[in-house]
Amino acid sequence: MGKKAVVLLSGGLDSATSAAIALTGGYELIALSCRYGQRHVKELRAAAAVAKFLGVKEHYEIDVNLSQWGGSALTDESIAIPRTGVQIDIIPITYVPGRNTVFIALALSLAEAKEAEAIYLGINAVDYSGYPDCRPEYLGAYQHLAGLSSKAGIEGKGARLVAPLIEWTKVEIVRKAIDLGVPIDLTWSCYNGGESPCGVCDSCRIRDSALREAGYKTSDN
Amino acid sequence: MGKKAVVLLSGGLDSATSAAIALTGGYELIALSCRYGQRHVKELRAAAAVAKFLGVKEHYEIDVNLSQWGGSALTDESIAIPRTGVQIDIIPITYVPGRNTVFIALALSLAEAKEAEAIYLGINAVDYSGYPDCRPEYLGAYQHLAGLSSKAGIEGKGARLVAPLIEWTKVEIVRKAIDLGVPIDLTWSCYNGGESPCGVCDSCRIRDSALREAGYKTSDN
Repeated sequence: MGKKAVVLLSGGLDSATSAAIALTGGYELIALSCRYGQRHVKELRAAAAVAKFLGVKEHYEIDVNLSQWGGSALTDESIAIPRTGVQIDIIPITYVPGRNTVFIALALSLAEAKEAEAIYLGINAVDYSGYPDCRPEYLGAYQHLAGLSSKAGIEGKGARLVAPLIEWTKVEIVRKAIDLGVPIDLTWSCYNGGESPCGVCDSCRIRDSALREAGYKTSDN
Repeated sequence: MGKKAVVLLSGGLDSATSAAIALTGGYELIALSCRYGQRHVKELRAAAAVAKFLGVKEHYEIDVNLSQWGGSALTDESIAIPRTGVQIDIIPITYVPGRNTVFIALALSLAEAKEAEAIYLGINAVDYSGYPDCRPEYLGAYQHLAGLSSKAGIEGKGARLVAPLIEWTKVEIVRKAIDLGVPIDLTWSCYNGGESPCGVCDSCRIRDSALREAGYKTSDN
């Protein structure tokens, strides 16, 4: 049996690229996707398509309904998704309280149960600087906690948290995705779960601009 | 509106006591219980009964099915619950990978969404020394992570993790429970989800012995 890595797969471009990078490291992938009450739940279909494309044999989808207590435009239909452009240096209303902390906790549980060596994350600190749980110091604190929290960690066999994209710009991510043959057209980034991407939410704006700059042509742009 | 605290309520004696302690601090309680695939899912009925008894107005129950990937006798019916007595200095098979890390992450999400000041936990390092995620150093690392992970944390308004029982013996917990009028008979601790407590799993043994030592009489002992 080969060495294993858990990959958090949202269905978006970043996590698909992170998974493709994990594959280049020779890992057998175990994918994990979370149904957390996001309005763009169709990203989970994208996650399944990406996992299939990448040859992932084990893909878990877990319900963890953070929308029960609201607090974000991504999980609360009564809060509008901003459409007017990306604001910098503020925490956006699309921030979901504790989301990455919950997702990484679930990945640690899965990694420990499956004896995986690494957890690959698509988090990125550059374009999403307003999200507190996408920063290197956050990840470092989580790695420290992971070493103390688990049977495997205490035995020195805990999973490493790997966030290969954390310091990259979105254009650098797109270029790496193209380079590795990531199925960009299968990924879904739009915060609105419509028939086609809205083009005006922060996620669409950042993605579309990076795709254009990298010279990538999709049916959307 | 008064100050709020999230309490993780499993349905067991420890978390009920922790909740009662939070009440003495003048908090309005928001309870959180997790359906994680535990075989003793009836503890959730106990959690609801305890919440009602304590006058909790807001009680969330969240599905987060850690049993999907197994790895513990508590979530995997094919692994037997040990019956032969408590072993010390080993991590027991009833340890669930990442469970407390997941539960605390969920509590942090809820606390942030509701602007709660504190999170009360029933974790205890003494009788369950074999569980890595019940130790003070684990909790300290989580508090550090919490300060970095959240919008509230960065703004200096993040919730404090409070584990009042962490250094107590089980007998001390029972004495405090009696003192505060915790409805001990409503709580459920047995790892087996049978009609009545099995009396031979680690959890029953530790509880029953402490109840006897504290002089508490239930229908079970």
